[in-house]
Amino acid sequence: MSNEATIGAESLPGGFVWGATRAGIKASGNPDLAVAVVNSTQTKGPAVGAVMYTSNRVVAAPVTVGQRHMLSTGGRVGAVLINSGNANCATGQPGIDGCISTCVAAAEAFGCIFDEIIPSSTGIIGVPFPAEKVVAAMPALKAAVGNTADHAEAFARAIMTTDTRMKTAHAVIPVDGAEVRIWGAAKGAGMIYPQLGVPVGPPHATMLVYLFTDVAADAADLRAALASAVAPSFNSISIDGDTSTNDTVLLLASGASGIHLGRELLPAFDAALADVCESLAHQIIADGEGVTHVVTLDIHGAASNADAKLVATTIAHSLLCKTAWSSGDPNWGRLMAAAGRSGAVFQPERVRIWIGGEPVYEYGVRAADYNEAAAHSAMMAPEYTILMDLGEADGACRFLTCDLTTEYVHINADYST
Amino acid sequence: MSNEATIGAESLPGGFVWGATRAGIKASGNPDLAVAVVNSTQTKGPAVGAVMYTSNRVVAAPVTVGQRHMLSTGGRVGAVLINSGNANCATGQPGIDGCISTCVAAAEAFGCIFDEIIPSSTGIIGVPFPAEKVVAAMPALKAAVGNTADHAEAFARAIMTTDTRMKTAHAVIPVDGAEVRIWGAAKGAGMIYPQLGVPVGPPHATMLVYLFTDVAADAADLRAALASAVAPSFNSISIDGDTSTNDTVLLLASGASGIHLGRELLPAFDAALADVCESLAHQIIADGEGVTHVVTLDIHGAASNADAKLVATTIAHSLLCKTAWSSGDPNWGRLMAAAGRSGAVFQPERVRIWIGGEPVYEYGVRAADYNEAAAHSAMMAPEYTILMDLGEADGACRFLTCDLTTEYVHINADYST
Repeated sequence: MSNEATIGAESLPGGFVWGATRAGIKASGNPDLAVAVVNSTQTKGPAVGAVMYTSNRVVAAPVTVGQRHMLSTGGRVGAVLINSGNANCATGQPGIDGCISTCVAAAEAFGCIFDEIIPSSTGIIGVPFPAEKVVAAMPALKAAVGNTADHAEAFARAIMTTDTRMKTAHAVIPVDGAEVRIWGAAKGAGMIYPQLGVPVGPPHATMLVYLFTDVAADAADLRAALASAVAPSFNSISIDGDTSTNDTVLLLASGASGIHLGRELLPAFDAALADVCESLAHQIIADGEGVTHVVTLDIHGAASNADAKLVATTIAHSLLCKTAWSSGDPNWGRLMAAAGRSGAVFQPERVRIWIGGEPVYEYGVRAADYNEAAAHSAMMAPEYTILMDLGEADGACRFLTCDLTTEYVHINADYST
Repeated sequence: MSNEATIGAESLPGGFVWGATRAGIKASGNPDLAVAVVNSTQTKGPAVGAVMYTSNRVVAAPVTVGQRHMLSTGGRVGAVLINSGNANCATGQPGIDGCISTCVAAAEAFGCIFDEIIPSSTGIIGVPFPAEKVVAAMPALKAAVGNTADHAEAFARAIMTTDTRMKTAHAVIPVDGAEVRIWGAAKGAGMIYPQLGVPVGPPHATMLVYLFTDVAADAADLRAALASAVAPSFNSISIDGDTSTNDTVLLLASGASGIHLGRELLPAFDAALADVCESLAHQIIADGEGVTHVVTLDIHGAASNADAKLVATTIAHSLLCKTAWSSGDPNWGRLMAAAGRSGAVFQPERVRIWIGGEPVYEYGVRAADYNEAAAHSAMMAPEYTILMDLGEADGACRFLTCDLTTEYVHINADYST
């Protein structure tokens, strides 16, 4: 597993081709249409897919259509078609119709059945979806696909919106002289507080994550593996607390390795998938809009895990905590005030807090060993941990978040999502 | 009722004197110690008080001490003593001891019993409370009190922290040729999402609000009047979603008018008190840190009032909604995304939204009569209403909030609360 600025061909799983082109949706003129297609010359048919969608009650057309497709096929996926620049959300029946027309065009271009296409969109909400631009770009998209690192990179870059960096991660699991590969690509970078629902089933990111593996898997095993990898990664991060209408995490297994995801392989596969998801989740926060500090919240000693998560998410979403982090202000009073309004049960006089390893608060008062200069210095690192021990019981939560800067405000005052 | 830049002597209720001095707590050297004292030459003893404190689990020492005093006296209040510049929160037993020592000194200076003093603090959290500065300033504070408009203004200004304007409001209720007066003073301006608990009883602002009236009232009637005035005013506003550890709303009735708050007077008194509270709540939002637009959220047609409040508070706390308001971006997609993650039950295709009277969204799509220029223009007003009709039932909520600007981030990245 690694964070990588470039993609090595040896990290890409077999059984897929990737590609991207310009459909003219993004005003910038940058590539805005991407596809990943199961390479049927290497596989026995479509991939097995598991998907988790946003739990927002308001969902984009591709979420509605994608859910329907996964349910009707039982998880067979021939291709994923992604446009950036328009979220196709709050677009009514014309949005649904437009989404379907792009799936029809992609099925024809890539030799799939219509409902084996999983559509995704990210960008501005509420603007009519230009399906005709996507359909018109299909021949160019088809001409652009391939299985090299350059093709995968084109895919990973075309799904970006306000992201400043491409986000990819991979893992290789050795199996009896052969190997299973996992490669994933993700985009952020605002409206990031994914709350992903159960895999398939009644569910619903503008976080988009696509995970590809060449293992051969049953749909049920794939869904279980995805759910357990998403909980501590994508479902434990937040940039701004705004859960998107389009959040999607899709895992596709091509089977091209010829290695089956059986009982022996499951622990190693789960661990590798968890690593890839954790890396992508971290990259999403680190490239969050205006972010200058990545903060890990380690909440221990809560009355329950649920209480620990209440404290973590309330701190992660507190404007006063997030602005203090932007200037490296070791303001434990704001941390305590946020914890106190979180709904979690605890006694302030039992709480201890360390920032970047520096003690700042203990048992109701400033820590005896508090050193403001040292705490401030620890907070000037690009990344640090805030450890809070509530002193109640053994409930715990780890949550990844970031500071709030004037740059975030500039980006979102000027950009229409 | 009026918002006022100056205080008229004819608006001040009888039975009180006000004053302020410099205790040297604020680094700026501005007045930071204020007192309101029941003028026993005009009354038959202490005032009758009703108080509501923050519901944050972490509370400042003066909240703990003030609660204890209200419970032990059954609501008798001789004076309220307020310092700004230090919140006396997360200061442990030394904070409690310091708070008590200031109450003892004030009781001696103003001829009250110790537990008839209600203490309040606002400012930095977690810094040891300089009780000795407050005690040392008591003679100067005693010399500064009086019942003129200048005295009341000195009181209202000394409680300010990051506030840019003094906040006062008043009402006069004519009663058979005589009158009952209500005058109030408040401070904001960040960490403002008051969630005030039941009057007295087990409860818990750095919102501080002091309301004075010369009506003669029973404690129970006063508590009921306060609770009903607070719900639609201070408990229906938010600047940043951060509920403070010190929020306090205190209503004192001196009885100096000689008019009893009986059954006949209650409706007029309740209405006047509600007006004063609504005015102060509005002034707090309008003077919120970095605020350039005041936004009223009018949520109608919800499945329940609770659902309407979920939608309103989620929108009010959405960074993406708040940043869009700062630039006048009629981004209904962000409004819908926030409503969708609020937990309220509704169907997106039944929802209609107007911003400043301009239709922007209806029944799942952009409004037919949407005019981007007109909507943007409406949002450039310093104040406007967003009306959202969820189309479910008759649940409703009105909530007052504001935009998020780079100035808010500057203030809170640089200021240690």
